[in-house]
Amino acid sequence: MQLATDGQLKHFLTIEGLSPLLLEEILDRAEQFLSNKSQNKSPVLRGKTVMNLFFENSTRTRTTFELAAQRLSADIVTLDIRNSSTSKGESLLDTIRNLGAMNCDMFVVRHQHSGAAHFIARHCPAHISVLNAGDGHHAHPTQAMLDMLTIRQHKEDFQPLKVGIIGDILHSRVARSQIHALTTLCTGEVRVIAPRTLIPAGIEKMGVNVFHNMEEGLDDLDVVIMLRLQKERMQGGLLPSEREYFSLYGLTEARMKLAKQDAIVMHPGPVNRGVEIDSRVADGKQSVILQQVNNGIAIRMAVMAMTMSGQAGELARQ
Amino acid sequence: MQLATDGQLKHFLTIEGLSPLLLEEILDRAEQFLSNKSQNKSPVLRGKTVMNLFFENSTRTRTTFELAAQRLSADIVTLDIRNSSTSKGESLLDTIRNLGAMNCDMFVVRHQHSGAAHFIARHCPAHISVLNAGDGHHAHPTQAMLDMLTIRQHKEDFQPLKVGIIGDILHSRVARSQIHALTTLCTGEVRVIAPRTLIPAGIEKMGVNVFHNMEEGLDDLDVVIMLRLQKERMQGGLLPSEREYFSLYGLTEARMKLAKQDAIVMHPGPVNRGVEIDSRVADGKQSVILQQVNNGIAIRMAVMAMTMSGQAGELARQ
Amino acid sequence: MQLATDGQLKHFLTIEGLSPLLLEEILDRAEQFLSNKSQNKSPVLRGKTVMNLFFENSTRTRTTFELAAQRLSADIVTLDIRNSSTSKGESLLDTIRNLGAMNCDMFVVRHQHSGAAHFIARHCPAHISVLNAGDGHHAHPTQAMLDMLTIRQHKEDFQPLKVGIIGDILHSRVARSQIHALTTLCTGEVRVIAPRTLIPAGIEKMGVNVFHNMEEGLDDLDVVIMLRLQKERMQGGLLPSEREYFSLYGLTEARMKLAKQDAIVMHPGPVNRGVEIDSRVADGKQSVILQQVNNGIAIRMAVMAMTMSGQAGELARQ
Repeated sequence: MQLATDGQLKHFLTIEGLSPLLLEEILDRAEQFLSNKSQNKSPVLRGKTVMNLFFENSTRTRTTFELAAQRLSADIVTLDIRNSSTSKGESLLDTIRNLGAMNCDMFVVRHQHSGAAHFIARHCPAHISVLNAGDGHHAHPTQAMLDMLTIRQHKEDFQPLKVGIIGDILHSRVARSQIHALTTLCTGEVRVIAPRTLIPAGIEKMGVNVFHNMEEGLDDLDVVIMLRLQKERMQGGLLPSEREYFSLYGLTEARMKLAKQDAIVMHPGPVNRGVEIDSRVADGKQSVILQQVNNGIAIRMAVMAMTMSGQAGELARQ
Repeated sequence: MQLATDGQLKHFLTIEGLSPLLLEEILDRAEQFLSNKSQNKSPVLRGKTVMNLFFENSTRTRTTFELAAQRLSADIVTLDIRNSSTSKGESLLDTIRNLGAMNCDMFVVRHQHSGAAHFIARHCPAHISVLNAGDGHHAHPTQAMLDMLTIRQHKEDFQPLKVGIIGDILHSRVARSQIHALTTLCTGEVRVIAPRTLIPAGIEKMGVNVFHNMEEGLDDLDVVIMLRLQKERMQGGLLPSEREYFSLYGLTEARMKLAKQDAIVMHPGPVNRGVEIDSRVADGKQSVILQQVNNGIAIRMAVMAMTMSGQAGELARQ
Repeated sequence: MQLATDGQLKHFLTIEGLSPLLLEEILDRAEQFLSNKSQNKSPVLRGKTVMNLFFENSTRTRTTFELAAQRLSADIVTLDIRNSSTSKGESLLDTIRNLGAMNCDMFVVRHQHSGAAHFIARHCPAHISVLNAGDGHHAHPTQAMLDMLTIRQHKEDFQPLKVGIIGDILHSRVARSQIHALTTLCTGEVRVIAPRTLIPAGIEKMGVNVFHNMEEGLDDLDVVIMLRLQKERMQGGLLPSEREYFSLYGLTEARMKLAKQDAIVMHPGPVNRGVEIDSRVADGKQSVILQQVNNGIAIRMAVMAMTMSGQAGELARQ
């Protein structure tokens, strides 16, 4: 449902089901935006209005979407919906219908419930594109694409790569989207590395290899992707203490030696120093964490530009 | 005080006292904005700065004013004043004088106290236009005008119409502004329909007929305007339970049959489904609720454009 | 560290150490912006992105920086960081590195800790200019410069002037920056007037005369600068009651007669009427408080324009 009838992007809800060609197109488009160093804004979204709908707070993600939209010359309205009519008991459907009636062209949606972005795309007016900025434990597709861009900038080709994702796979929308992106791009091997309590049952069906031992999992990796450990998990009894977690699964300089010498270290931020990753690794030469942040704006510009053009084509055909 | 010496709008504080001609001019101007489907923004407020002063939270109203100002090319600063200096004990007068000293051209004001917008218009610098976005129980004139626009789009003329306003008339600034607008536009009959506890004493002087029985009130209506029931009222003892309110005053499909066959159903939103209105009516063929939302942006653009031009004329004459 | 190698402003962190010539240049630049009454925006920051980083809330200061940036055609992103990742336990350094990776050109920083703006300037990417919008008890340099502009508009020259700063000198970043600005501009005499508990030890080394008696301190002043009394201080035991404070240090009409006949009264706002200043003085003929507010936008435009140009020069030389 995120594709127009001619196969172009109309919404961007999940990586699942998208073709390798389309993913490459997003990466190429983002590279174009990165290589344009002039001060001139792109006029791609001039006269368009982007509505940021943040049902869940995220200053960082909201900011990068705002910056991306501004660079494309869009108008922006940001709604912190936790304080709005929905708190007066209005249903999500009513909220979306109302916002959809307000002359706008794109919804950027962050929501604590899995499936919210799909639900909104299904129920909003046809001329509005929906971009998923994170929904529950389900997907965070722009994060996954900025990660793919970062990998491609360091490693020519995905096919020979061994990529490990380490941490709370069970609750991570980032991990889920990364796995879809990596397998779609034909990555040689994708591993998930975590304690048993943090791995969802049946994840092997997504095409990944499961490791419970950090040393075995890190062996010979080209790309090491750390996830942020939500400290709330420990209170839920899924995890022992921070100290024990770090001793078993923390990324240290010593452990990094098990990966390839030219392996890169990634993290979606914000980093819990000393919990999932040692500061010397987070700030070390192999870390590309800040490059990920920078790529985030270019990826969001690419997806915004492509979905708007997909919508325009779809509307022209009708 | 909201008119310039040549009779043009300078502020927009209340419908009361405005001429039918001026109301028609607002509606015509809004229609012009609606009919302009091009992506080009209007340059009417280019170089002007609109300050949104929200002393009371309202995501929906704030958003439509922001969208309207953006469409007119204005710069916008939004102040959530609940968190600002006024909470440090500064008086409203000091706040207004300070903001008035900051090179801006328009205040959009939402305030929990009746009369706040008038007070601000009286005390801010002469070059600033004040738009009332809702003050206490007093007035919400842009809401009333978007309702008039919606009625005019469905019914050619106001004169033969029977219009009913149903619900908490006592506490509703929306109802008060609607009544002024409807009577100014020479509507055939304006009815208010509510339990005795929710009707202000002496409201007949505003030119309306009072009904306490829903069936009698709905009879032969052309336009059915529902108000949102503030659930807080029930705790105040003014109302029995939600269920009893719905059984006496809820708008159901059965009751809608008492109105004219081509009657339209309106609601300022957000809707309390199953409290004041049945979902089948809110989402039914006669409902024009989403059209109201869409008209809200055009009406706000119209009022912004007209007050700025009224100010310019006034300043030129001085 | 706030100067480029050619002596131009690159950051604006503190008045301390800046030359009289540079301060005069800021004032002259601000006057130029004030005298341009056309509706046209200045294109000086077109294509640039200003990030407002408010670790401490301040609606008033944030608004004037936003207005200044808009007038210079910049894009603006405002982060209320109290609600952001830092509250998830991220360090200031990580926050700054992350925001620094997001294609922006200027940080406007407000922070409750002294030295925060310097820390950020030291650790953010080289192409970003940092403007201090108030850090702890340390400095508030744009406030001091708008005060200097206001003084210069009323008094031709700083050299013959006697200027008194009255109130909580101990906790005031405004006072500290004012003293640096006044002494740099060779003001004839700078006095601080306050109870012993609100004067920092050794302040005479900054080139000021200390008075504990209001009547003696006011004698023959050309400029009377009142500070806002933070009511929290009284709970800390540093002060007796409000009433006693006012009777000893409140600025009344009677006391104003001790100053020169053409003395001006200043206050950074928001005013505590009846605590540090009588309403008849705050609203009287000698008060220039609202002019200060208006000057604030011009000063912020000047500093933004100058630091961006200083950065451009520095980057061109590299």
